[in-house]
Amino acid sequence: MNGTSFIGFTRGSETSDTFTAFDPTTGNAVEPLFHSATLDELETTARLADAARIPYGDLPGKTRAKFLRSIADNIEALGDTLIERATLETSLPNARFIGERARTCGQLRMFADLLDEGSWVEARIDHAIPDRQPLPKPDVRSMYRPLGPVAVFCASNFPLAYSVAGGDTASALAAGCPVIAIAHTAHPGTAELVGSAVAKAVADHNMPEGTFSLIFSKGYELGQALVAHRAIKAVGFTGSRRGGRALMDIAARRDDPIPVYAEMSSVNPTFLLPNAIAKRGDALAAGLHASVTGGVGQFCTKPGLVFLPSKADSGSFLSDLRSHISNTGAAPLLTEGIRKSYETASEGRRPEVEDFTENTAADLTGFAVRPSIFETSAATFLEKPELNDEIFGPTTLLINADSKEELLEIARGLEGQLTASIHGDEEDLVEYADLIAILETKAGRLIFNGFSTGVEVCPSMVHGGPYPATSDSRSTAVGSRAITRFARLVCFQNFPDAALPDELKEANPLGIWRMIDSEFVR
Amino acid sequence: MNGTSFIGFTRGSETSDTFTAFDPTTGNAVEPLFHSATLDELETTARLADAARIPYGDLPGKTRAKFLRSIADNIEALGDTLIERATLETSLPNARFIGERARTCGQLRMFADLLDEGSWVEARIDHAIPDRQPLPKPDVRSMYRPLGPVAVFCASNFPLAYSVAGGDTASALAAGCPVIAIAHTAHPGTAELVGSAVAKAVADHNMPEGTFSLIFSKGYELGQALVAHRAIKAVGFTGSRRGGRALMDIAARRDDPIPVYAEMSSVNPTFLLPNAIAKRGDALAAGLHASVTGGVGQFCTKPGLVFLPSKADSGSFLSDLRSHISNTGAAPLLTEGIRKSYETASEGRRPEVEDFTENTAADLTGFAVRPSIFETSAATFLEKPELNDEIFGPTTLLINADSKEELLEIARGLEGQLTASIHGDEEDLVEYADLIAILETKAGRLIFNGFSTGVEVCPSMVHGGPYPATSDSRSTAVGSRAITRFARLVCFQNFPDAALPDELKEANPLGIWRMIDSEFVR
Repeated sequence: MNGTSFIGFTRGSETSDTFTAFDPTTGNAVEPLFHSATLDELETTARLADAARIPYGDLPGKTRAKFLRSIADNIEALGDTLIERATLETSLPNARFIGERARTCGQLRMFADLLDEGSWVEARIDHAIPDRQPLPKPDVRSMYRPLGPVAVFCASNFPLAYSVAGGDTASALAAGCPVIAIAHTAHPGTAELVGSAVAKAVADHNMPEGTFSLIFSKGYELGQALVAHRAIKAVGFTGSRRGGRALMDIAARRDDPIPVYAEMSSVNPTFLLPNAIAKRGDALAAGLHASVTGGVGQFCTKPGLVFLPSKADSGSFLSDLRSHISNTGAAPLLTEGIRKSYETASEGRRPEVEDFTENTAADLTGFAVRPSIFETSAATFLEKPELNDEIFGPTTLLINADSKEELLEIARGLEGQLTASIHGDEEDLVEYADLIAILETKAGRLIFNGFSTGVEVCPSMVHGGPYPATSDSRSTAVGSRAITRFARLVCFQNFPDAALPDELKEANPLGIWRMIDSEFVR
Repeated sequence: MNGTSFIGFTRGSETSDTFTAFDPTTGNAVEPLFHSATLDELETTARLADAARIPYGDLPGKTRAKFLRSIADNIEALGDTLIERATLETSLPNARFIGERARTCGQLRMFADLLDEGSWVEARIDHAIPDRQPLPKPDVRSMYRPLGPVAVFCASNFPLAYSVAGGDTASALAAGCPVIAIAHTAHPGTAELVGSAVAKAVADHNMPEGTFSLIFSKGYELGQALVAHRAIKAVGFTGSRRGGRALMDIAARRDDPIPVYAEMSSVNPTFLLPNAIAKRGDALAAGLHASVTGGVGQFCTKPGLVFLPSKADSGSFLSDLRSHISNTGAAPLLTEGIRKSYETASEGRRPEVEDFTENTAADLTGFAVRPSIFETSAATFLEKPELNDEIFGPTTLLINADSKEELLEIARGLEGQLTASIHGDEEDLVEYADLIAILETKAGRLIFNGFSTGVEVCPSMVHGGPYPATSDSRSTAVGSRAITRFARLVCFQNFPDAALPDELKEANPLGIWRMIDSEFVR
């Protein structure tokens, strides 16, 4: 580990603009020093990515698939070194990273499989009709082609699965786009290790220089400059609403605005309907507690708003939940910044709503915080829109609603969400059909009798949602559909077969699914 | 025709803020007076569209298909009244509107067919694996659902096919989104006639009030207010770069930014490679002339930059072309504003590059202009980036390049385009493979041995391209793929079958193509 950026095939210089990771358990700095890239180095990465755009984008899908598999193999080959470093930089348990590594490598291999199969390009062919009246019909063929170089911002809360070789990088590389990753300052050592795994795959597979770079940056300037750079054609980001919006605004002000896929802010409203509470209040209390405190509450899908029927109908649910939370020890958040935000936001909430917690965990060293639960009425919630704001960390807000009408009014006023969850039985689903119709306009994923944390990586997953959940509600950051975020449709009219991409050649040499003259065939 | 807006089921008031259409042949005003909607009326349309969002979006696709077919039938039932009014307001020939009406109704029926078939929603199902280790796999299903109310700005140059019931409206209504159309001031009478056809279909099919509204507006304020309105979830626009960018900027500054599909500005670079000029220079001259002057040069796909091999190798192409242009009469543009822009931009170009035309057509009444052709060298073109600017109207710029390297340098510097055309033989395609690779990163459609005007409406068409050709290079404004512009992915996790949309029910009651456990099946 030498703490310098990966500028194409070379390493960045050691600069005076340095930073370190911290051990969240103690708050102490952790070696080594990391060196912010210079603006010249950033310019070089952009120039190299631009130069790699056509040669990398024109590689056959199966070649890119081998490259992605090789990245996964190299990450696994890092062995315990990677797991230990990630644990050191985050204080999240080893087991979490063994799981997150499996997910990260699984994602890379899922996209490799997608490329091997090949149909993701959505090839369409309409054959010519030269004698059509009044005008001949031309031969028209189209498919997804790569969008161009992508800037990927690593996420604080997923040091592997949404960082250097995480979902955004995997889907961008799969689509045929060079990637410039910007390491998160909370886990630069993890980033460097994964960066070395990607760089080795680039070298072993003779990928063009500029296919991958990794930038260390202490502040925001380099990332912002990259989003404004004309070589960059799309942005992937997972982080705060403020950070994501800042990048959206920079991208929108460019001479040529580019798409930003920012996954930002979601309070994941969770509705505990009457029959659910009545029938299995104890299981709901245990499940909610696990969902709110898992990963120390640092998942974008953490349930941040929980709606209950009137208190009288809640049985022992509330006392069960209070007991779970009170018995949960303090745990460190990822960074001092996140800890401060958690404490400040919690303090700001206390005069507004009742602190329902009786947690007195004493060990608040490092970046540790206590879990908490707030409680209020629907009427108060409707009066105070700021209660919709996300608090990143192990806390949630319970809202007691006295009527279905209150719930509908609240649902109509919700911002965009990654998820909305409904706990009930089939009778509740009928009774609350209008609530579900509203939630469908608000969220990317609707969950029945489950909690929102835990995102299955599969072809049908949608991890997206209207603003501010994401910057682009049409897309998903998880699952195989994520690849089309980094692709654009290109159409070839009257091209000779030999000059067409393989996906569009008449004989279908890749054996992919295509829409030919309006019919799906393979 | 009463000149007032369609505010849901009612008509707007007569206001003092009025305007008329003009006869471009004479420049004279044409009856009747049209009344700008009030801000209150605009607010009402937005409120009604918001109220229609869930009931209209939840209708079965086949119900929406009947509604779209009914709009097409009603447009045809307007008969000659519509054709005559469109001709009066634009001075484009009758035959053009008979063709454009066929295209407009064809588009509506194409989307109806798409809804009847049903697979456009891209349904995906991943079945649960309850005993998977370490965690159970949930049942996950997803599909496209409507984005919400859409503001559609009518295009000056397509009074039928990209106006009140044109491609944007048809694809938005097909996707399940209510539409508020803003009439173009150049052809408000055509807009009112088509608006009445849509309104009748809304009434006959008992669509919710707010499914469709049509706003007349003399200035830009109402349109801009609509794009900023929180009920609006997407925007369709066809027009100038300045107008499109203004709407993009408003949408990007919203509390919740929304997608804008603006089709704006393209000079459609056309490359006449050596073997093409040598073998069929006369046909190219005739074809280019027709493409530049068709519709009085007012197509977004008009070839605005034409690259030639060195003059010595051009044979009689140049003299043939000059002769065609010189013998073409003057013709009126659509509006006085377009006429002024054409004359000003042409005048501004004259000191920069050679005016190659010898057109002396005398009849410049109304909004008429003469066609023209400019000529310059690649070196001059590279020095003057303003020569990349689109001039809307019957003019183009010929650029003589002395080397392939010059062409590649020019291609690398091009802005985003709707189309790029290459004329040559298969030998040229091999020789210029690197040119084509560059053009693929610049344009939505690549055409071999054809001109860019004329856009086939079919499943594989891509009428899109990088900025400034459009605001969103991932999309197409023409063809069946246009529907997904107005849709977003929604995912249902562990829902009981009865509560799922038909498209996601286990038994596949609609018989659509779906991806089930990673396999395409029907």
